[in-house]
Amino acid sequence: MITRSLCLVLGLTATSLSADPLPSWNDTEAKARIIDFVTDVTDPDSEMFVVQADRIAVFDNDGTLWAEQPVYFQLIYGIDVVARKGAEDPAFLTSDALRAAAAGDMKALMATGQEGLIEVLDASHAGMSVDAFQANVLEWLDTARHPKTGMRYDEMLYQPMLELLRYLRDEGFETYIVSGGGVHFMRAFAENAYNIPPEQVIGSTMNSSYQIVEGVPTVVKDAGFSFIDDKEGKPIAIDSKIGKRPIFAGGNSDGDFQMLEWTTAGDGPRLGLIVHHTDAAREFAYDRDSHIGKLVRGLDEGPERGWLIVDIAKDWEAVWPSE
Amino acid sequence: MITRSLCLVLGLTATSLSADPLPSWNDTEAKARIIDFVTDVTDPDSEMFVVQADRIAVFDNDGTLWAEQPVYFQLIYGIDVVARKGAEDPAFLTSDALRAAAAGDMKALMATGQEGLIEVLDASHAGMSVDAFQANVLEWLDTARHPKTGMRYDEMLYQPMLELLRYLRDEGFETYIVSGGGVHFMRAFAENAYNIPPEQVIGSTMNSSYQIVEGVPTVVKDAGFSFIDDKEGKPIAIDSKIGKRPIFAGGNSDGDFQMLEWTTAGDGPRLGLIVHHTDAAREFAYDRDSHIGKLVRGLDEGPERGWLIVDIAKDWEAVWPSE
Ligand SMILES: [Ca+2]
Ligand SMILES: [Ca+2]
Repeated sequence: MITRSLCLVLGLTATSLSADPLPSWNDTEAKARIIDFVTDVTDPDSEMFVVQADRIAVFDNDGTLWAEQPVYFQLIYGIDVVARKGAEDPAFLTSDALRAAAAGDMKALMATGQEGLIEVLDASHAGMSVDAFQANVLEWLDTARHPKTGMRYDEMLYQPMLELLRYLRDEGFETYIVSGGGVHFMRAFAENAYNIPPEQVIGSTMNSSYQIVEGVPTVVKDAGFSFIDDKEGKPIAIDSKIGKRPIFAGGNSDGDFQMLEWTTAGDGPRLGLIVHHTDAAREFAYDRDSHIGKLVRGLDEGPERGWLIVDIAKDWEAVWPSE
Repeated sequence: MITRSLCLVLGLTATSLSADPLPSWNDTEAKARIIDFVTDVTDPDSEMFVVQADRIAVFDNDGTLWAEQPVYFQLIYGIDVVARKGAEDPAFLTSDALRAAAAGDMKALMATGQEGLIEVLDASHAGMSVDAFQANVLEWLDTARHPKTGMRYDEMLYQPMLELLRYLRDEGFETYIVSGGGVHFMRAFAENAYNIPPEQVIGSTMNSSYQIVEGVPTVVKDAGFSFIDDKEGKPIAIDSKIGKRPIFAGGNSDGDFQMLEWTTAGDGPRLGLIVHHTDAAREFAYDRDSHIGKLVRGLDEGPERGWLIVDIAKDWEAVWPSE
């Protein structure tokens, strides 16, 4: 009885004592490698033991923790906002990119290039306080639905990855998001969706300014990017914001290559994981030729670097939490 | 006995149960206000109760947690490195600023302006890996001594502030450094000095790059600043990196004004604290006319804003840990 009370006091759950920590993973090599790694680094008697303070795990978001097709959900948010503002006031649509976005013409929008996409992001994200922006995102998540699945965007989370995040935290890891997505956008839902608090969400940042708005000190989102958290930017952001090299990194595209490379180049036990989207029936299938989440180098070099390539069709028993 | 074991399990210390949490503070109003604030926000029955996840406290470093006279210790580090490199190879001293630094001629160095100071920082901080830089800083801390006190620089910590940090953490706060100092410089000693881990140290950042150096993936420090964590930069950095508005902010100069302003403008209980350097005998006395840690607006507006102005001569029973 005292033992049981102590377990409750210490927050030990049945999961951490005995049950399967990854029930939505099939019993394949992928699951075994993850569990072996976590078991080794948390076993004080193992040569691979890692003290709790160094159990840092980093995860990309789009395509790694939640879906990203047909385009990044944050871009869909931007397009929806531009369309709504354009409907309220057509004078808001001052460029080809904004008019294409408002018309829902993805082909025309893509033709405006990166400059056009940044126009859409600026027009939908900038010129308001961080608080107002995040309230807008939450309102949008409440009403918007994914064109293919009809699900809420924040229900298109990968159940096996939710279990992995929780398993790692149960075993003393700190779990960070390190994503190309906007830091304020992700924080609007990350705590509810992933149990990851704002201070553990690292992302791309737009410019901000500190202003006294009608007497109220306010952090305001401004146009333009101050940091793109992608490719080489990921290890740089991890160094700058966490200050420790992770021992576990998960991603799904070549934008995560440097993060996995830097993580797994450290001394001692390391695990790099790539989610390979192979399941058109349950989710989406894409890799080398995709316009989103392009994965070439990770597939070519990952296995010889010892990275774990997770094959969704083969390794995941379920994809969505709602299954 | 079971109660005692449970306390040990829960990490409750004698301090948190009964003893004075701030023994190096005199029994003045300053100490009472701090303890009242912490007691209120941690009492579930108080209207001022704040859930643990929102107990964020932020502290400036130079002049708030450790000393900063005659000039910022990080600048002394830079000057010492330039002098050493110049002694090894005079060709290293390619400018008036570097020659003045190597000669220990502070007046000539200051005459080169901000540009000259940045030259000294670039020459002493850039062009090496983060790991190599931090090893250099630790080596310097081991040998360098403060010109006035003869103490190690990392012993010139303010004992009352160490107690405050610990008290806040004991009461469920997360304690962050948010300082104009360089993030890599501060992280070299912050964990030992303050028990603040790298991920809770926010500072100014120089440019970095991710490079494969002789086959080894490396984050390299480059010349030039990418972010100055001072004045308006402090609330912007807190928003960007923590993503929550703190409920407690401590600083010592007008560079902290916006951080205290933004912190204390939030809803619910908030405390802003300014360390006022009034004690030339035990430390240094400076405020309105100082070239370092200039404090004007904080003194003029702080009291009416409800900020606590800590008077070192009056409020601190001891200054240094070694007392
Ligand atoms: Ca991705
Ligand atoms: Ca200061």
